[in-house]
Amino acid sequence: MATVTMKQDTSVLASRLARAADTAAARDLDAVLISPGSDMRYLIGAGEESFERLSCLVVPADRDLAPVFVLPKLELLGYADVPADELGVEFVTWVDGEDPYAKVSEVLRGGGASPSRVGLADTMPVRHSIPLRDAAPGVEQVLASAVMRELRIRKDAAEIAGLRKAGTAIDRVHARMGEFLRPGRTEAEVGADIHDAILAEGHTKAAFIIVGSGPHGASPHHDVSDRIIEEGDVVVVDIGGPIPEGYNSDCTRTYAVGEPKQPDVRETYRVLYEAQRAAVAAVKPGVTAESIDAAAREPITAAGFGQFFVHRTGHGIGLDVHEEPWIVGGSTTVLEPGMAFSVEPGIYQPGHWGARIEDIVVVTDDGVASLNNQPHELTVLPA
Amino acid sequence: MATVTMKQDTSVLASRLARAADTAAARDLDAVLISPGSDMRYLIGAGEESFERLSCLVVPADRDLAPVFVLPKLELLGYADVPADELGVEFVTWVDGEDPYAKVSEVLRGGGASPSRVGLADTMPVRHSIPLRDAAPGVEQVLASAVMRELRIRKDAAEIAGLRKAGTAIDRVHARMGEFLRPGRTEAEVGADIHDAILAEGHTKAAFIIVGSGPHGASPHHDVSDRIIEEGDVVVVDIGGPIPEGYNSDCTRTYAVGEPKQPDVRETYRVLYEAQRAAVAAVKPGVTAESIDAAAREPITAAGFGQFFVHRTGHGIGLDVHEEPWIVGGSTTVLEPGMAFSVEPGIYQPGHWGARIEDIVVVTDDGVASLNNQPHELTVLPA
Repeated sequence: MATVTMKQDTSVLASRLARAADTAAARDLDAVLISPGSDMRYLIGAGEESFERLSCLVVPADRDLAPVFVLPKLELLGYADVPADELGVEFVTWVDGEDPYAKVSEVLRGGGASPSRVGLADTMPVRHSIPLRDAAPGVEQVLASAVMRELRIRKDAAEIAGLRKAGTAIDRVHARMGEFLRPGRTEAEVGADIHDAILAEGHTKAAFIIVGSGPHGASPHHDVSDRIIEEGDVVVVDIGGPIPEGYNSDCTRTYAVGEPKQPDVRETYRVLYEAQRAAVAAVKPGVTAESIDAAAREPITAAGFGQFFVHRTGHGIGLDVHEEPWIVGGSTTVLEPGMAFSVEPGIYQPGHWGARIEDIVVVTDDGVASLNNQPHELTVLPA
Repeated sequence: MATVTMKQDTSVLASRLARAADTAAARDLDAVLISPGSDMRYLIGAGEESFERLSCLVVPADRDLAPVFVLPKLELLGYADVPADELGVEFVTWVDGEDPYAKVSEVLRGGGASPSRVGLADTMPVRHSIPLRDAAPGVEQVLASAVMRELRIRKDAAEIAGLRKAGTAIDRVHARMGEFLRPGRTEAEVGADIHDAILAEGHTKAAFIIVGSGPHGASPHHDVSDRIIEEGDVVVVDIGGPIPEGYNSDCTRTYAVGEPKQPDVRETYRVLYEAQRAAVAAVKPGVTAESIDAAAREPITAAGFGQFFVHRTGHGIGLDVHEEPWIVGGSTTVLEPGMAFSVEPGIYQPGHWGARIEDIVVVTDDGVASLNNQPHELTVLPA
């Protein structure tokens, strides 16, 4: 499994590593331990999820100590593009039969340090965190998310450009939905065409493809099935994936294949449409994440559909499809310029049909920019 | 993200759940906590990796207590095919804004129990294990792998049939390599054709595609690149993925595109060929995993290439591409009938070329069966 290396400005990576160290220090952590995944890609520009062998980037809070990357020797070539010297990152390799956890523990105790508390990347599996705990007794493990969130939650201009490029790419796929979504085809057939279009429009892969037709539209996390799409079906299409720069798209539109057969579709969809538009319009610096959730939820509840809106309103997006900030009741996170997230209310009528509308938006200095701009109305495709 | 549900005999799943409970009890665990992934699919027939919301199957060691599956309400429909009633598994759902970790803690303390030690599925990310730890103070977390390994390391007849079907499918892809691998094409172009062939031959996805041409063949975990394949290149092709039953293929063959341009290829490949054949032939019940590693490594070392065989000889395979047993120096695991693993020595000449030969084999009652049967010799394709 090779590593995706993103061409990142070395000075940007260096500044992220320095901020990670400083933020770790401010949070009373001795170091953050980063396994392959988006946190690693953010810090050193590489780090595709790997199999069971430990790869772990140790970023000490003390900036006088070098970050150390402990990794299997056989994965070294996959990180050849990391500007290790310029970043001051030291590579320590291990081979099958050696104990990589002891190596990380040695790194933590380098120069006579006695670490008491380390932050672990959210995605590190317990197959690594538990052996690390046992190899470094007395070192408390907490989540590194407090550190990495602080760095990643506000996107810089290059990151927003990446998200915008991804958004435009997925918009082009939605614009072609009439080619794919026709009665008599299965969801899986439609999904296969969408898969090809996602790649053709500039993504490196399709991270998820939901084609929820008829009653399947009422399952928010459906993917595709062998159900044959019928005339009059309402179909939820939620698609996205990463572009070469690593940033993700994620956009949902709801289609009708011919005039919808259920009589309640148009009126209910209108409620959802107004709710989604209101929630996007409410986005600006200084308001809370929960206020955006409320802006979407209140009109849906007022119309009597509250029980059918079974998830939060949105999630942050960037190098991960789902990341902070969460747009959810109870979140008092205050929106700031550079935050990017989905606004995606849905109404799901179990056993009948469902609808969802989702845009990725970015908080600007004085309001909001939407990165998805296909029509938000129920799009009726030819049957 | 939908859940893959495998059609499994309910009685098989019930027996696995019962064995998991008994094995947990024998290991002094109060319960095992299983997140979505192969362990969950093994136990209840469903459980595709999910995003950041907690889904956790709690299997108490006390068989008088029902297993409880705590999951997000919006993912409930994805588990509709799990025979929950027949298995005696209770579903507890949560919605955004609720604390799922407190729910798991409640389950653990159900009926007045005071758990002291739980096993966590290897793949559970720390974003879940650390909040679980904090929600259940005083409960020690260890890996559930000791339990799940005991169950999964020996495959039953249906599992071996699944692995055999996967092996035959990937053999058909290798048999077609002459269609794809030609001079003038990039590794990525070849990889795209292989991707389609992997699907066409009966896999649900391509889990990995390595096309390591020329010097890239010397990087064991290369994937594909824009390097153009040249006449005389040696090319390592390592491919596989799951079939609908959930079991994986994984097979490597090394090709030459026309007569190899480096003069040392034929002689060095011969060493590798003999080593791989000897290691497969050494597989039988009662010998250790490290003895298989040695059977592959010794002839390579004797020929002077030991430093270029930079990884272990193999890994178990089943619902995961990599699982126990590990075929590695230092492993005294004794092979038993039903164990399935790769035998895949390689010789890597950094900067020049590399070669690897990989079969999946199963330990039988009196020896070994190979699930991959394409020729092991260096296959010279037309240039």
